[in-house]
Amino acid sequence: MSDNIDFKIRKVIKSLKSSPIRNVANSVIGKKNIIPLYFGETDIATPAFISKAMKTALDDGHTFYSANQGISELVETISKYSSSLHKKKINSSRIMVTSAGMNALMIAAEALVNPKDKIICITPVWPNFMRCIEIMGGNVIEIPLLHSKKENIWKLNLKEIKKYIKDAKAIYINTPNNPTGWVMNSQEQSEILELCRKEKTWIISDEVYERIIYDRKVAPSFLDISKDDDLLIVVNSFSKSWAMTGWRLGWMIVPEGLISIFEKLNEFNVASPSSPAQHAGVVAINEGEKFIEKMIHDLKISRDIALNNLNNFSRVIFPYSQAAFYAYFKIKDISDSEKFCFDTLEKTGVGLAPGTSFGKGGNKWIRICYAKSPDLLNKAFEKLKPMLS
Amino acid sequence: MSDNIDFKIRKVIKSLKSSPIRNVANSVIGKKNIIPLYFGETDIATPAFISKAMKTALDDGHTFYSANQGISELVETISKYSSSLHKKKINSSRIMVTSAGMNALMIAAEALVNPKDKIICITPVWPNFMRCIEIMGGNVIEIPLLHSKKENIWKLNLKEIKKYIKDAKAIYINTPNNPTGWVMNSQEQSEILELCRKEKTWIISDEVYERIIYDRKVAPSFLDISKDDDLLIVVNSFSKSWAMTGWRLGWMIVPEGLISIFEKLNEFNVASPSSPAQHAGVVAINEGEKFIEKMIHDLKISRDIALNNLNNFSRVIFPYSQAAFYAYFKIKDISDSEKFCFDTLEKTGVGLAPGTSFGKGGNKWIRICYAKSPDLLNKAFEKLKPMLS
Repeated sequence: MSDNIDFKIRKVIKSLKSSPIRNVANSVIGKKNIIPLYFGETDIATPAFISKAMKTALDDGHTFYSANQGISELVETISKYSSSLHKKKINSSRIMVTSAGMNALMIAAEALVNPKDKIICITPVWPNFMRCIEIMGGNVIEIPLLHSKKENIWKLNLKEIKKYIKDAKAIYINTPNNPTGWVMNSQEQSEILELCRKEKTWIISDEVYERIIYDRKVAPSFLDISKDDDLLIVVNSFSKSWAMTGWRLGWMIVPEGLISIFEKLNEFNVASPSSPAQHAGVVAINEGEKFIEKMIHDLKISRDIALNNLNNFSRVIFPYSQAAFYAYFKIKDISDSEKFCFDTLEKTGVGLAPGTSFGKGGNKWIRICYAKSPDLLNKAFEKLKPMLS
Repeated sequence: MSDNIDFKIRKVIKSLKSSPIRNVANSVIGKKNIIPLYFGETDIATPAFISKAMKTALDDGHTFYSANQGISELVETISKYSSSLHKKKINSSRIMVTSAGMNALMIAAEALVNPKDKIICITPVWPNFMRCIEIMGGNVIEIPLLHSKKENIWKLNLKEIKKYIKDAKAIYINTPNNPTGWVMNSQEQSEILELCRKEKTWIISDEVYERIIYDRKVAPSFLDISKDDDLLIVVNSFSKSWAMTGWRLGWMIVPEGLISIFEKLNEFNVASPSSPAQHAGVVAINEGEKFIEKMIHDLKISRDIALNNLNNFSRVIFPYSQAAFYAYFKIKDISDSEKFCFDTLEKTGVGLAPGTSFGKGGNKWIRICYAKSPDLLNKAFEKLKPMLS
C-alpha cells in the first residue's frame, strides 16, 4: 500500500477528533460481562406499538421516496405536538423531518458555517455538532458552563458569551444538556435571545432531551419565547423520547420562510428520511405519552440510585442532574479521565465515558448513562467501589 | 417578517440550484390523473421478503444504535456480494454502510472537497453530487459526454478530461448513467484509472445502477480493474436493485486503510444507518437475485415499449439506452426543455424531466423513467403524441 494513500483527504477531516467514548468502548469489543454505561441510550427496545406502525406502513407499500420536507402527516403531527407542548403555534411550514437529530445538525452547519466562521458552543456538550462545524471549515469557540463550587450547580457564563457573540455566526446550546443534566431556564433563554437579536446571531438549540426531565412535562424551550422569524433552529429527535435510537428519525424547526432552503439540503444529504419510519413516527407522537410517562418514572428511580451511590464517595463531586439520563461527576484527584476510564473498564468491566469527550476541561470528569435497570446499576456501582472510594 | 431573514445563510446555499424536476412536479401537487415519468423510481413496492426481514429485526429488538461502519453481518454480506460480482476480493475493511447512496456521496464530498477545489463531473448526470461539491465550497467542472451524431451513441470526451484532470481533486462518474443509460466500458475505465493514478486524482464512481443492465448480470465497475489502495470511492445503493428507494440504505467502498476516516464522517452525518433496515439489507442481498432477475425482465419490456414509441417521432432522436431505466431523448426543434415539460404536463398530464436538470446543454433534451407497467407506458405515449409529433 502507498504510504500516502490519505494525502488528498482534507486535513481538517484527517485531524477530526474521534470520540474518546468510542476509544474506550472499542478496547473491549467482543469481550463479555461488560456493563456499558458509556453510550447515550436506554436499554429499552422501541415499544411494540411503534414497531407495529412501521410494519403496517411496509404492508401498505410506503416504501417509496417521500417529499424532502417529510410526509405531510408527520409534519402536521409534529406541528400539533410542538404547538401543544410549547403553548404556541408552530406552523408546519417551519418543520422539516430529518434522518435523526444528528443529520439536522449537519444540515444546520451546511446552511450557516462558512470557512473561518466562529460558532460558540456551550460546553460540556455532546461533541458531534462541534465536529460538524469543523467539517464545514468553521472555528469552534468553547464557552464552558461555570461550576459554582459554593452552590454546586452549573451556571451559564453570560459574561464570556457577551464578549464573543458579536463575532460569532451562531451559538449552539444543548439543553437539557448531555452530559451534565443541566437545564437552561427561561430567564437565561430570554437573555440569550435578546443578545442574539441585537447581534443578529443564530441560535442552534439542540432540544432532543426536552421530554427527559423529572419535575415537569417538558423543559423550557427557545420555542416558548421566540418569534417565527427569529434566527433560531431547534433540533429534535425521536431517539430519546420514544426509545428509537436505531431508527434515525428527527426533525428541525427553522424560521418561517426558509423551509425551501432546508428542503434542498435534505435532498443533498439523505434526500428524505426513511418512509416507513416516518409513518411510525406519526404513531409514536400520537400514542406515545403513556410510554414517555412510564419511561420517566423508571428513569427517575435509576437516577436516584446513581446519584445516591455517587454521593457515598468523598472523592466524587457533582452538580445535581436535573434532566436527560446522565450523571456527570468530578473525581477530585484524577488528572486524565480517559486513562481513568480505560483502567476502570479493565479492572471492573464497567464502561464509563471520559469527560474529555465533551470539550476542554473534562480531565477530572466522568459521565455515566444511568438509563439502565436498578439491578444493573447497583451491580455496576458495587464493581466501581474500588475505583471511586 | 423581517426582509432579511435569510441574510446570514451562506450565499452558496441560497443559490443552490433546486431541481427542475421538482419544479415541474411541484406544479401539479394534489392533482389527479397525472402519469409521473419524472422521478427515478420504479412503481414496484419493496418485495415482501425484504419487508419481512425488517419486521423480524424489529421483533428481535434491533432498534438500538449500530456501529459507525454498519452492522457486521451486513458489511460481511456486502463484501461477499461485491467480491462475487466483480471477481475480486473486496475486503470488508473497505466497506461502510450509509444512509443511502446520497449520503455516501455527501460523505465523499466532505472528505475530499476543500473550498475552491475543482471536481470534474461527467454530464449529463443526476445533479445531486454537483450540489454536494458546491455545498463544500468546491467548483464543478462539467465535461459533457459527446453525442456522436454519426453513430448516434454517447462517447467519453477523453481529450477534455486530459486537459482538466491535472488541476482536479477528483472526477465523478455515474455509470450506468442516469439520465442517458450510457455504460462506460472497461477500456474507458482503464484509461481513466491510469490517468488518475498518474495525476493522483480521486475517482468517485457512482455505480447504483450496476444491476439495472439488460445484456449481462452486472455493468463494468472500477472495482474490476483497480487495486485496494487506488484513490477510488465506489458508491452503491439498495434503492434501485431491490426497489428500496424509501428505505435510505446504501454503501461505499473506500481505499484499504481509510475506513476509520469515513466512519468518523458517518458518525457526524447520521451516526449509523437505520438498524432494522440494515438487517433487512442482509436478506435483500442474500435472497434477492430472483427478484432482480424478474425486475430486469419486466424493465426490458418497458424499455422496448418506450424506445419503440420514441422511434415513431421524427422530431425525436436518442442514443440507445443500454442500462438504468431511463430514456434520454432530444427534441430537435425545442430550445427550453423545462418550459416544454411544464406545457406537456399541463396539456397531457404526463410528467417528464427536463434535460436542464442534468447539467449544461440539456435545453433540447428530456428524460423519462420507463420503469412503469406496459399499460401505463402505452397510455402515456398515447397522451404524448400531440406534443412529440
